[in-house]
Amino acid sequence: MLCNMHKNGSQSLSELQAKIRRFCDEREWDQFHNPKDLSISLALEAAEVLEHFQWKNKDEMAKHSTENKGAIAEELADVLYWVLLLSNKLDIDLIGSFQDKMIKNEIKYPVDKAKGSHKKYTEL
Amino acid sequence: MLCNMHKNGSQSLSELQAKIRRFCDEREWDQFHNPKDLSISLALEAAEVLEHFQWKNKDEMAKHSTENKGAIAEELADVLYWVLLLSNKLDIDLIGSFQDKMIKNEIKYPVDKAKGSHKKYTEL
Amino acid sequence: MLCNMHKNGSQSLSELQAKIRRFCDEREWDQFHNPKDLSISLALEAAEVLEHFQWKNKDEMAKHSTENKGAIAEELADVLYWVLLLSNKLDIDLIGSFQDKMIKNEIKYPVDKAKGSHKKYTEL
Amino acid sequence: MLCNMHKNGSQSLSELQAKIRRFCDEREWDQFHNPKDLSISLALEAAEVLEHFQWKNKDEMAKHSTENKGAIAEELADVLYWVLLLSNKLDIDLIGSFQDKMIKNEIKYPVDKAKGSHKKYTEL
Repeated sequence: MLCNMHKNGSQSLSELQAKIRRFCDEREWDQFHNPKDLSISLALEAAEVLEHFQWKNKDEMAKHSTENKGAIAEELADVLYWVLLLSNKLDIDLIGSFQDKMIKNEIKYPVDKAKGSHKKYTEL
Repeated sequence: MLCNMHKNGSQSLSELQAKIRRFCDEREWDQFHNPKDLSISLALEAAEVLEHFQWKNKDEMAKHSTENKGAIAEELADVLYWVLLLSNKLDIDLIGSFQDKMIKNEIKYPVDKAKGSHKKYTEL
Repeated sequence: MLCNMHKNGSQSLSELQAKIRRFCDEREWDQFHNPKDLSISLALEAAEVLEHFQWKNKDEMAKHSTENKGAIAEELADVLYWVLLLSNKLDIDLIGSFQDKMIKNEIKYPVDKAKGSHKKYTEL
Repeated sequence: MLCNMHKNGSQSLSELQAKIRRFCDEREWDQFHNPKDLSISLALEAAEVLEHFQWKNKDEMAKHSTENKGAIAEELADVLYWVLLLSNKLDIDLIGSFQDKMIKNEIKYPVDKAKGSHKKYTEL
């Protein structure tokens, strides 16, 4: 039996983080990578994702997303890049934190109260 | 032979996306999940990461990161949540896009030009 | 004849800037006010404005804006605070820049091409 | 005696708002100006200000600010544009809100506690 974890988009996040680290090390970029500037990068890339949908209504968003899938994918990849680099830098287990957060979310947003509502958990 | 892709933080992103989808489906939140509002969520969570490091110098950042690791991890998990949900919604292969972007980055930032510099590729 | 520039919300921006400067000087905050952290503050306050309208449709936005006018006003005042402080810090004449920008906007968005369109000037 | 409120950068904000409104009316843009998209514009322009200072240390920021004063001024003018348009749209008295906020700030950050500290008022 073969382990196909590298196929079908299932490469592990730790492997992606190693890839990023290697990329940055070769360029001696570690000296710039303090949490503040890394978070700025994250915020700026998130803004670039958002810019794609500004002013557009549902139909326009659907059309735009289809026609610009590659460009949007690239912005989302940039966001992933910074969130991986930042969590690596801060020695944070991103998957573990994600799992923990999902458990918290289940509690904060109980199905019977949250169903069909976009209210924040503090207002449910 | 056993495939241990679920151990050691290597759960695949597609599995995390399935988890998010299930979470949202149970709450009938799909109706709110247009790309604009999803991108807003992404940008707001990125801002919450950034807020942690505002005004702080290097030492203060190091101290703060150690003392607030759990809280920062939670914000980063939130960013991951939205980038996964958004890419799932737009039918974007996030890992594939990431791999492609890394190849582009290698070309945009050749080691000999980019080494030790924080300039944007357009200025190298 | 009396100059009523202080009445009816027409206090000059330079006076507001002087007020901010005095407020900061009393607290010896100038040491923290580098452009990066000031811009972060600006971005974070803009995010707080945005948060008010997340997930909401037109009717919900109208209702929310009426019921939370004071809170939204406060966020907008915070944005104004940082944009005034930042431009003061960088010795930028904000009103002058605004006037110049409006002239540029007139050229970038000629009425006959821009009427009824939300396209960016690069796509007109 | 002459009232020189239109000279020396002291044109009133209400006049600037009237200018923006005229500019938008001529282009029939009111149909796009819901609070969500206006706030997105505000956030995106704030991000563009922030981008100027990313990765830079103090000296680099000083150099960059001097050499790119016009470009930065333009981004700050854009932020002012959106904060004015948004407050006008929501029928918010921006100057009044600013004055109120400054009074609140005086209380939240008493001189004796806040002097020389960049802590948030909740932590003072």
